[in-house]
Amino acid sequence: MAVITPETILDAYRFRHACKVFDPDKKIPDDLFRTILESGRLSPSSFGFEPWRFLIVQNPELRQKLLPVTWGAQRSLPTASHYVVILARKTPSMIWSSEYITHMMRDVHHLPPEAVEARRQKYRRFQEKDFRLLETPRALFDWAGKQCYIALGNMMTTAAMMEIDSCAVEGFEADALERIMAEEFGIDTETFGVAVMAAFGYRIDSPKPKTRQRLESIVEWL
Amino acid sequence: MAVITPETILDAYRFRHACKVFDPDKKIPDDLFRTILESGRLSPSSFGFEPWRFLIVQNPELRQKLLPVTWGAQRSLPTASHYVVILARKTPSMIWSSEYITHMMRDVHHLPPEAVEARRQKYRRFQEKDFRLLETPRALFDWAGKQCYIALGNMMTTAAMMEIDSCAVEGFEADALERIMAEEFGIDTETFGVAVMAAFGYRIDSPKPKTRQRLESIVEWL
Repeated sequence: MAVITPETILDAYRFRHACKVFDPDKKIPDDLFRTILESGRLSPSSFGFEPWRFLIVQNPELRQKLLPVTWGAQRSLPTASHYVVILARKTPSMIWSSEYITHMMRDVHHLPPEAVEARRQKYRRFQEKDFRLLETPRALFDWAGKQCYIALGNMMTTAAMMEIDSCAVEGFEADALERIMAEEFGIDTETFGVAVMAAFGYRIDSPKPKTRQRLESIVEWL
Repeated sequence: MAVITPETILDAYRFRHACKVFDPDKKIPDDLFRTILESGRLSPSSFGFEPWRFLIVQNPELRQKLLPVTWGAQRSLPTASHYVVILARKTPSMIWSSEYITHMMRDVHHLPPEAVEARRQKYRRFQEKDFRLLETPRALFDWAGKQCYIALGNMMTTAAMMEIDSCAVEGFEADALERIMAEEFGIDTETFGVAVMAAFGYRIDSPKPKTRQRLESIVEWL
């Protein structure tokens, strides 16, 4: 494996910024966008359950439907080369007893039947006791959403390493967007909800200087 | 900026796996671990509010205190070169009216006073209406936690790019861990809670082959 130097890595994190408007004439080449998607796919998730799905919204009419409920992407929705809605799984597929969890353990992780049951019980304790995820449907959905943010972060970092810009989009009306997902995008909103969205493309404006707390303010050695 | 090739990037994602036990004799060089922390620090967060804090737990006695409540790190806690507890901020510092939010906008983002107030109202609407984050304290904490998972993902990816192994750790009893944070780690648990933990170091075992759903199962083009 080719090791990448610290400076090269950090240059990518410095390159990345919340890009609010993109060059409408510049498209991300297919192989590079596929690399972005692959880094989402290869992201880790709790128990390896990959509670995500990626909608790549390229149809201008569908983007238009998102516009009225997505104040955080007024300029990126019409200009992004690629616009991604990241869906997170809800209770019907994420609860320990679900078909989806069985499918993941049996068909994706290739666990033998007795290991499936042992792992299911471990996951059940985790959901019921350790993290109390079954307290409300929201708690479980938010937990699935957290895993999606790992994929989101990786996709933006991968983009930056290829000098592709991006912007995570949380600026939307969640309930109204969910209705649009059901009515216009054909999404089964019993099973999936929008975790977050992300726009990808190429900048036209110079970014403002990055602001962050100093490392000493956020790190404590014990 | 040095652009990194798709294959080099994907090699790092393929290199990364959930490393459950580390070589106890191999320490991550300081400059490389600092690069990992920097990639956490430079990670994006909603509104740029950086709702995270990183505890680097190197004291073996403190690691021992985590052991009874952290079933997911039984072998990594004693062997990791660096063990990180990622704290997420709770309501007292994340609510729109808080001192911390004012501090971030004024002293870190360097917004002028009128922009601070405009942005605060936008954030308030987002919290109250768009995402209904003030529904329960848990909803707001989980939302701060999501931002932490972006940093978590980036830190693991950065590590992999330098051939450093890692493992995210969600296998803990949240309530019991919180008490230990208050009593043994001196954390103000009104303001901070544990979002997730992560171990870093160097593998001694060969990883199992990576399992994932195919890209076609998780991506839909619209």
